Amino acid sequence: MQFPTNLAEAIDWLSSFGAGSDGGVTRTLYSKPWKEAQEVLKGWMETQGFETQYDSIGNLFGRLSSVDSGAPTILVGSHVDTVHSGGKYDGAYGILAAILALSHLKKKYGQPILNLEVVSLCEEEGSRFPLACSGSGIMTGVYSFDEIKGVMDSDGIGFETAMKESGFGLGGEKYKVRNDIHAFIELHIEQGPSLEKLGKSIGIVQTIVGQKRFQITVTGESNHAGTTLMKWRKDPLHGAVSMIDDLYESIKEYDENLVTTVGQLFVEPNVSNVIPSQIVFTVDARHPLEMVLSSFCERFTSRFQEIAKAKGLGIKIEKWHEVSPVQMDAKLNEILLAICKGSDVSCHVMNSGAGHDAQLFANVCPTTIMFVPSQGGISHSPLEYTSTADLETGLHVLIHLLHQLAYTQQKGGVL
Amino acid sequence: MQFPTNLAEAIDWLSSFGAGSDGGVTRTLYSKPWKEAQEVLKGWMETQGFETQYDSIGNLFGRLSSVDSGAPTILVGSHVDTVHSGGKYDGAYGILAAILALSHLKKKYGQPILNLEVVSLCEEEGSRFPLACSGSGIMTGVYSFDEIKGVMDSDGIGFETAMKESGFGLGGEKYKVRNDIHAFIELHIEQGPSLEKLGKSIGIVQTIVGQKRFQITVTGESNHAGTTLMKWRKDPLHGAVSMIDDLYESIKEYDENLVTTVGQLFVEPNVSNVIPSQIVFTVDARHPLEMVLSSFCERFTSRFQEIAKAKGLGIKIEKWHEVSPVQMDAKLNEILLAICKGSDVSCHVMNSGAGHDAQLFANVCPTTIMFVPSQGGISHSPLEYTSTADLETGLHVLIHLLHQLAYTQQKGGVL
Repeated sequence: MQFPTNLAEAIDWLSSFGAGSDGGVTRTLYSKPWKEAQEVLKGWMETQGFETQYDSIGNLFGRLSSVDSGAPTILVGSHVDTVHSGGKYDGAYGILAAILALSHLKKKYGQPILNLEVVSLCEEEGSRFPLACSGSGIMTGVYSFDEIKGVMDSDGIGFETAMKESGFGLGGEKYKVRNDIHAFIELHIEQGPSLEKLGKSIGIVQTIVGQKRFQITVTGESNHAGTTLMKWRKDPLHGAVSMIDDLYESIKEYDENLVTTVGQLFVEPNVSNVIPSQIVFTVDARHPLEMVLSSFCERFTSRFQEIAKAKGLGIKIEKWHEVSPVQMDAKLNEILLAICKGSDVSCHVMNSGAGHDAQLFANVCPTTIMFVPSQGGISHSPLEYTSTADLETGLHVLIHLLHQLAYTQQKGGVL
Repeated sequence: MQFPTNLAEAIDWLSSFGAGSDGGVTRTLYSKPWKEAQEVLKGWMETQGFETQYDSIGNLFGRLSSVDSGAPTILVGSHVDTVHSGGKYDGAYGILAAILALSHLKKKYGQPILNLEVVSLCEEEGSRFPLACSGSGIMTGVYSFDEIKGVMDSDGIGFETAMKESGFGLGGEKYKVRNDIHAFIELHIEQGPSLEKLGKSIGIVQTIVGQKRFQITVTGESNHAGTTLMKWRKDPLHGAVSMIDDLYESIKEYDENLVTTVGQLFVEPNVSNVIPSQIVFTVDARHPLEMVLSSFCERFTSRFQEIAKAKGLGIKIEKWHEVSPVQMDAKLNEILLAICKGSDVSCHVMNSGAGHDAQLFANVCPTTIMFVPSQGGISHSPLEYTSTADLETGLHVLIHLLHQLAYTQQKGGVL
């Protein structure tokens, strides 16, 4: 096989595994293109002189061992899976840049003081099974394999079955969580418009925001649109629009890091001349501080209750997803800031409104994630794009960071 | 065949043609149960001594001829078709009561001065083909058969094809609109809650309201719900809820005969963590006065434009359905009022928020429609119900009206 020699080539090369006719990439967990991608990454890492291995669930590692057999490990990488018809950069960029960074460091500086290890995480998107970040979740021990193994994809295939068909799986023993990982570094596209809008090359993430997601069901009385006077109606859509309007008005009183979205709304029976019987809609709210997020959610849920009561409607509010804000490591971010300053790379300290594998690693070791710009903020789409210059800038900063962490310091001294 | 001997029996008997397992009735135009229903009605009319005939599109007539061969005709009836899984009363009641009324008058008073004719109109609901009131529309010459014959049902079967398969159709000549019809009388269930709420037995309809229906398309920019700050968003759902809220607020400034409904709303792409790209929703507005209806519609469409502009959203407003208000005949309604008063029947002069065949006949002859209560205002549902006592009261009033029109007056003197 012809392996890539630079970042631009590497992006196109990996995207050919799972390429669709619409220009999108589909590599869902344990699928054929997913397995092919892991295998060719393994092959490429070996040509670069890394020691490769899979863990039992399909996370792929490529190691540059320290001179010191007892040294801890700096782990760097991202996820190899994609959404259905996703872009070439999401996840892939973080793995490919990590391989190129280690390869460069090995050529230039030889064996590191701390072990350096690339990881191609098996799953982050939650596109096949109804759970996300299973690769980093199981690896860090935050998720238990027993809790996950039974979940089904939309074809009714269980997680464990799919995993075994792909050639992975445990003999019966528990997943062995590693205790040698000293730091986790992720490089990723922003998937949002901030860096582009601000004209910055690198985003240094302070916090991955907390999320709360709700499903709101508003019930009223369906009736004929022509024969039912307004005063006799119990129209749940009237209630729902008041609630959503109130939600968008009230967020103006908070700082700009708070975002909220009603992305999904269903009307029953959804016929133009029938007053609806029921509206179901979602509310997604995110903020880097748990206190602010909770206060906003308590406020809007209580307002929704008041509006429903005032209009004589039924309401059910269910919280179906919740993730606490996660702080990235301040020391790692300071090093990144200094690198950017020293290299004359423009950077922006920011929050991540999207979830990432780094969120899971932050539970067990100093962790950070850094971003490069996404054109138009577009992601999870064949239109996802980052310029080669921006990709190279990210790689440049990553190389400097890994050099400082694994070559220039005493074992663990920097963190 | 065993024919019914009273109204309650007649309702159950006719509902057996097209009866579904859910208790609903489905008799769409030119279907097998529709044809069976017309045929058994024809049979029943004949046992009552009426001269029966179909017109070329399948409207069924049962005639009690005047002593005077040149006398005009009082037409009374309603539609035999139903919506999918509709109730037993909608349409059917008006035909069955008309047959029983004529039968009673014939037995009691013999041959009338004016011709009396029951009509079982072939179609009103618009449930099979995308057009409504084709039976009365073609019969009155308001619709042209040439305009209608090509319309397709959801299986791709054309109107004319379905009609011919059912045994109807013209040889090539034009539909011959009758010029002998002196008045049209319809008896119908209310399909709304007014009579029940007011505790009245008969609704005398002054106006069938005008309707305007719109489709509103609001376009914005789809983006990630986590990574897009509120200030950067162009969220079409935010725009749509402001518009709908404004619509429901502004209607409070009008009289209670104005009703408006947003019954249908679609979100694109309708995913909980994605800011929508487009919202499509309908607005249905009705009022008995064209001026009020037009003023309301002009106001809300201009408000919608303003809201879209203020939020940087695109908007397209399409009016896809429009019917002017139709006045029922004042003289006929006066006679009805007097009959109710004289018979100690409680009645309520009202508007019809729903469309009816009477709307079409009002274009060509003095016409009125009267209502009996619908329990809970429910219609187009297996749960549709009117008590036998209420049905009988309607029949009683109808008999009195037809008696006055066809037996006690000089030819046409009353109108």
